[in-house]
Amino acid sequence: MCSGELEKVLNEVARLVTPSPDEYREVWSTASQVVDVLSEEFKRRGIDVRVEVEGSIAKDTWLSGDRDIDIFIVFPRNYSVEEAIRLGLEVSKDVATSRGWSWIEKYADHPYLRISIGEYEVDVVPCMEIKPNEKPLTAADRTPLHTQYVRSKLSDDLRRDVRILKKFMKTIGVYGAEIKVRGFSGYLCELLVIAYGGFTKLIEDASKNWRPYRVVIDLEHYYPSAIEARRAFKNDVLVVIDPVDRSRNVAAAVSLEKFCTFIAASKLLLEKPSLNFFFPQEVSEVTVNRIADLLRERDVHIVAIETKAPKVSPDVLWGQIERSLRAVSKLLNNYGFTVLYSSAWSDEETTVVLVFEVEQIQKPRLEKHLGPPVYSDESRKFLEKWISRAVVGPYIEGNRWVVYRERKFSDVRTLLRSKIFEIGLGKYIAEALRECMSIYIDDEVLDLCRRSKDFTKFLVKFLRRAPPWLPK
Amino acid sequence: MCSGELEKVLNEVARLVTPSPDEYREVWSTASQVVDVLSEEFKRRGIDVRVEVEGSIAKDTWLSGDRDIDIFIVFPRNYSVEEAIRLGLEVSKDVATSRGWSWIEKYADHPYLRISIGEYEVDVVPCMEIKPNEKPLTAADRTPLHTQYVRSKLSDDLRRDVRILKKFMKTIGVYGAEIKVRGFSGYLCELLVIAYGGFTKLIEDASKNWRPYRVVIDLEHYYPSAIEARRAFKNDVLVVIDPVDRSRNVAAAVSLEKFCTFIAASKLLLEKPSLNFFFPQEVSEVTVNRIADLLRERDVHIVAIETKAPKVSPDVLWGQIERSLRAVSKLLNNYGFTVLYSSAWSDEETTVVLVFEVEQIQKPRLEKHLGPPVYSDESRKFLEKWISRAVVGPYIEGNRWVVYRERKFSDVRTLLRSKIFEIGLGKYIAEALRECMSIYIDDEVLDLCRRSKDFTKFLVKFLRRAPPWLPK
Repeated sequence: MCSGELEKVLNEVARLVTPSPDEYREVWSTASQVVDVLSEEFKRRGIDVRVEVEGSIAKDTWLSGDRDIDIFIVFPRNYSVEEAIRLGLEVSKDVATSRGWSWIEKYADHPYLRISIGEYEVDVVPCMEIKPNEKPLTAADRTPLHTQYVRSKLSDDLRRDVRILKKFMKTIGVYGAEIKVRGFSGYLCELLVIAYGGFTKLIEDASKNWRPYRVVIDLEHYYPSAIEARRAFKNDVLVVIDPVDRSRNVAAAVSLEKFCTFIAASKLLLEKPSLNFFFPQEVSEVTVNRIADLLRERDVHIVAIETKAPKVSPDVLWGQIERSLRAVSKLLNNYGFTVLYSSAWSDEETTVVLVFEVEQIQKPRLEKHLGPPVYSDESRKFLEKWISRAVVGPYIEGNRWVVYRERKFSDVRTLLRSKIFEIGLGKYIAEALRECMSIYIDDEVLDLCRRSKDFTKFLVKFLRRAPPWLPK
Repeated sequence: MCSGELEKVLNEVARLVTPSPDEYREVWSTASQVVDVLSEEFKRRGIDVRVEVEGSIAKDTWLSGDRDIDIFIVFPRNYSVEEAIRLGLEVSKDVATSRGWSWIEKYADHPYLRISIGEYEVDVVPCMEIKPNEKPLTAADRTPLHTQYVRSKLSDDLRRDVRILKKFMKTIGVYGAEIKVRGFSGYLCELLVIAYGGFTKLIEDASKNWRPYRVVIDLEHYYPSAIEARRAFKNDVLVVIDPVDRSRNVAAAVSLEKFCTFIAASKLLLEKPSLNFFFPQEVSEVTVNRIADLLRERDVHIVAIETKAPKVSPDVLWGQIERSLRAVSKLLNNYGFTVLYSSAWSDEETTVVLVFEVEQIQKPRLEKHLGPPVYSDESRKFLEKWISRAVVGPYIEGNRWVVYRERKFSDVRTLLRSKIFEIGLGKYIAEALRECMSIYIDDEVLDLCRRSKDFTKFLVKFLRRAPPWLPK
């Protein structure tokens, strides 16, 4: 590793991800405007709330080009949660409507408002005021405390490094705590940079010392030892105690794979610093013909199951997709169709496609079926059943009767059509599949590519699989 | 079960397997003649030996049609083993030559003489005189004691039942202690009938109570308990203590499969008595065209490896064949070619054919190859090796790097040709394969059928596998 070289790369990254003065002005003018009109309206109605900018804008850790603004309406505790949410939404809607801003109601743990202003999406979220380590009443209540904590800890240098880290994590595909990613949230990035005192120290430690189920970061020393903190979150791959809530692991969402991807990319970045780790190489547009070639080159098989996207939140949707991938893989494996890889694509609006790579899509018509030991009481029944029906045998192998019988499902399509509703799919995915299910095998998958460029991109990644940041 | 019906069947069997008076006269005239001339010659040379008829002729348990006579030359202990064998062979050869009988020297545990007289094969075996429970000097020494013991125990009824049992065992394919069969010897049949007091009681107990590694028969009560006898022979499926040698298990050769076959056939015979269990149904001659049909009907595959039969005794040959079947099956399985069944054919003179039924003879060109954990020291080497060479990846799955690589052996023929000499084949089979190895897959196996009717019969059994005595 040549640390001068890394520093050069990081400086260039910092330059590119720091918002320009113009951008700052635009973001803050939009944000302040919303805060101001909301504050006024609440005051006018005699509702005693704080309206604050939160998140990466407030913490000054947003990346140039980001267009998401978080504004929280913090209710004092003399309001009930239900009242606070009702009032928060009502007033925000009235304000947005009166200003001519378009808005939609969204739902995370509780409802909130998404207002579109120019290029910006402003999320207005009601929450309850709490103190550090106080039990939150809604999932949004900690956010103002997070903002305060991070602001109190970050210097200009550290803010630069948070931006670099976020950009790095986005490029290597581990940024975001949502179910679809199961990676590192923005807040987690901030805490990691605070804990290590910088990006380089973080990735040095990660690449040298990080192991799954071993790392504990407890900035406020809430736990007497790392061992006790680990004990409290023993199923989590990484533990980062929330400085504003000792009972919460900020890294709870991080999956083994994303954790390890971060380690691997950190190692590679240190070995050979390059902008590739920060600016995703544009995957050159791939034609359907090229995909046909890619499919033909490999003699393992692709099986895709298409259905409608159920109308649920992305986290619920991707949770169900993951579950369905696991269940279908298990089904295929159980019937002898070895699943080598699986992944899913969805536009989250209309379509879900589960994709499996399998070693075989056809099994021999015959299968060996082991019967009971010859001396067991079941042997008579086994012989009665099979003596005229077996294709081969019954014969004795070791101590058991054995026959070859017709396989119930000798091809993937029949198996899926017959059994898919008997396995533990997510409920919504099962409902969607009952309404409509299309199965595409090998070349047939090209139909899906012809219908969606985004699916095509997904499929190219699925087929190639090497991450674009991997040095060649 | 209808015991009257069984008795009827057994009476008919007894009638058919008991030698006729003419047959007795012929056998005994041949046997006595050899005993007489041998005795005379030894006496003439001043060698003090007993010349005796042994085996099933002496015990009157031979089956009608058998043409094998055993004659033993029992040397007193003032001769050394080497001298006894030398003298025994020398005198027998001289006698046979002078009489104009053709003979060949054969070899079991030690050499002996096989003399052909008319339709009879007379084996003349030198051995040393020992007393019961005395340590034998050659493997043949116990035989005269076996003859004496069995003669002292058998009544006419029991002799009838021994004949029935032998015929039953022959038909169901479990008769013979040689390696090729790993079944029940004639002496073992006799002891079983003596122990149970008859054929029917034996098969009743076997079908109800016999379990592998549980049955102990100790006629002379040499062991204080069955548990202790079992402990002495804990790896043997069935334990029958030799009444003339407490340290020997007469059933040591019996394999799990032959033991279980005997149980299964006993059950079925009791359920539905039939002559089918005693007189093998002639397998109607099968044409090569019919085999082609049988092969086409099943979409699992046949792989046959042909080589020359090494010039060794049948027991050594079949020991090596078994070992080779196991080794090749393991090789095929290790490379993903699932072996469903295997067996071998040999004429014991010129040719050996190992035959395997496999689920697939072709695997995808690509295979998934798991690399090290991303945080291990080996990950760097793994990436260096695969980054430009992998067909898919490297990518991260769970905590490991993974690639798809070209499979080294994607078809059975290439695998066998490349690897067969790196596995634990029997030494003689390996030598034979080095000299000549032919591999036949699916339809190609018909070439072997065209060359040998006996192989064709074997293959039909291999393909059908249900034993002919199984009721339809």
